[in-house]
Amino acid sequence: MSRSEFQLIQSYFSDPQQVSRPDLILGIGDDCAIVAPREQAHLAFSIDTLISGVHFPQDTPPDAVAYKALAVNLSDLAAMGAEPAWFTLSLTLPDITHDMPREQWLEKFSKSLFSLAREHGIQLIGGDTTKGPLAITIQVSGYLDKSRGMQRSGAKVNDLIVVTGALGAAAMGLKIALQQHDEQYACLSQQDKQQAVKALNYPLARVAEGLNLHNIAHSAIDISDGLLSDLGHILTASGVGAELALEKIPLAASLACLDKKTAWEIALTGGDDYQLCFTLAEDDWPDVKAQYPNFSAIGVITAQKDLHLSAAETQGSGRQEYKIPTRGYDHFG
Amino acid sequence: MSRSEFQLIQSYFSDPQQVSRPDLILGIGDDCAIVAPREQAHLAFSIDTLISGVHFPQDTPPDAVAYKALAVNLSDLAAMGAEPAWFTLSLTLPDITHDMPREQWLEKFSKSLFSLAREHGIQLIGGDTTKGPLAITIQVSGYLDKSRGMQRSGAKVNDLIVVTGALGAAAMGLKIALQQHDEQYACLSQQDKQQAVKALNYPLARVAEGLNLHNIAHSAIDISDGLLSDLGHILTASGVGAELALEKIPLAASLACLDKKTAWEIALTGGDDYQLCFTLAEDDWPDVKAQYPNFSAIGVITAQKDLHLSAAETQGSGRQEYKIPTRGYDHFG
Repeated sequence: MSRSEFQLIQSYFSDPQQVSRPDLILGIGDDCAIVAPREQAHLAFSIDTLISGVHFPQDTPPDAVAYKALAVNLSDLAAMGAEPAWFTLSLTLPDITHDMPREQWLEKFSKSLFSLAREHGIQLIGGDTTKGPLAITIQVSGYLDKSRGMQRSGAKVNDLIVVTGALGAAAMGLKIALQQHDEQYACLSQQDKQQAVKALNYPLARVAEGLNLHNIAHSAIDISDGLLSDLGHILTASGVGAELALEKIPLAASLACLDKKTAWEIALTGGDDYQLCFTLAEDDWPDVKAQYPNFSAIGVITAQKDLHLSAAETQGSGRQEYKIPTRGYDHFG
Repeated sequence: MSRSEFQLIQSYFSDPQQVSRPDLILGIGDDCAIVAPREQAHLAFSIDTLISGVHFPQDTPPDAVAYKALAVNLSDLAAMGAEPAWFTLSLTLPDITHDMPREQWLEKFSKSLFSLAREHGIQLIGGDTTKGPLAITIQVSGYLDKSRGMQRSGAKVNDLIVVTGALGAAAMGLKIALQQHDEQYACLSQQDKQQAVKALNYPLARVAEGLNLHNIAHSAIDISDGLLSDLGHILTASGVGAELALEKIPLAASLACLDKKTAWEIALTGGDDYQLCFTLAEDDWPDVKAQYPNFSAIGVITAQKDLHLSAAETQGSGRQEYKIPTRGYDHFG
């Protein structure tokens, strides 16, 4: 790292308010950071890159960029049932971002980053900065107490499929942020729109939920690319199928005015929700539901390796099959 | 991660030949990787991003890009005296790189990456791929056996300053790769040029040397931005100064035909050498030198917080002071 990069990091990423973990031996500013992990613990690692114009709209404010970059990584720890510990940051920055000089942008970025880090007790221990098109790579490390975590491959036939909260707000927010005006979204109020954009920019990582679930859930994933796509990973890894009951899918409040089919499609295929999707034995569901009333059981794992979607008919007790044209958002697509 | 990204990673980054470490619980393909660190060990982490056109010329072949991206991170572990264990990779890739379809590029990239990884017993445990301008971020993790490593801040007055090998080849290689033709480089043979470009593209991480030194050296850094710049970090962190004897600096063979002053300037300010620069007590030097004849003591740590450069005069026993216009390569510059 060169002198000016070093100074840049020193000034913006050495927050005296930041978390100060007892298991850190050496933090930012040397060739490596050094940690002394707890005895008997396993460690979970995840790395994610967010690129401006790919993973977030180019005019996303620096506070939101920082929040989201860390949150999506915390969400990976959450999906594994791990406890956040340390993170490293690689930041590629142009001279001017979002019409701000670099210093102003960095100040807002680092303030927001450290605020979320404090909330989760995770400490920035190292980094790298480079000049170039805006991109943020974060690697998070967390503790798993001698457990193998909630892996994608653990789903069992007859498991219930549960999501930790409402879906679709972030995908709606992306449409709004990209100004994809469409007749069918005209019913959204100003407040609906604001909530949707907030869901896109400030996703909540379900870390506490992940920690609580990690001895109960058989499998888990965080919903980053859309429920169908991410549930698909669980099904593939576990060698099973699923039946989803669309009427049970909790729809974000900002989708309430849309017709059901449009709302379901957004909730099923839209990315960036960062709710957890997990499976567990039916017997364990009542206790979990009692603790987390916002969780919803939306389907069941089947031996047949298909993903079936159906909805209760509005009249009568029959069910109508649904087909969704695409399985989720593809950053390479 | 979306379906096609997932398949991309699955196909190119699941090398059956790859290192299979006993301390890995869960590798690529879930929300997190899981490791079970050795008892009583400390862990060292480092993250580095290489961007095409910034950290390597845009026409650098994929084999070299992969090699260098991992080597510069291994070099950070080496500078700390850590033993490589696991790494994660975030790869941002355009559709076409270096006039190759993505698949061909990825095949060469991953083959080279795994080859170097095998050499150092380090295992790829997770990753992220995105479409965009070519950039590679790697985070490495390594073991430090209950030691605090070789930190930049440990240099002591009267320590000798040592480099692990010849300097300047990579900086010369960059001039050649960027076709910066200059009268003064006309003396280089075709072989000199090839060696220089090889030094740029395939830097050797001094991992074994770092491990051997780590109870002897008082401070260390790897030379990524040029000797003066990187030694400067040691001096600043340790609150000391240094005197360097230019005639003792080992110059790369490919600089042999240049006049001394030009060669010194390249060796002192050119980046990408990835030799280690470390300091140790004078008493320990003979044993180290006996083990590593290629190491060179090039100066001494002083209490006065300046960096003095001088060279023995060709006639007589006097010394001539030198000033170097810049302190090193600045990626932000």
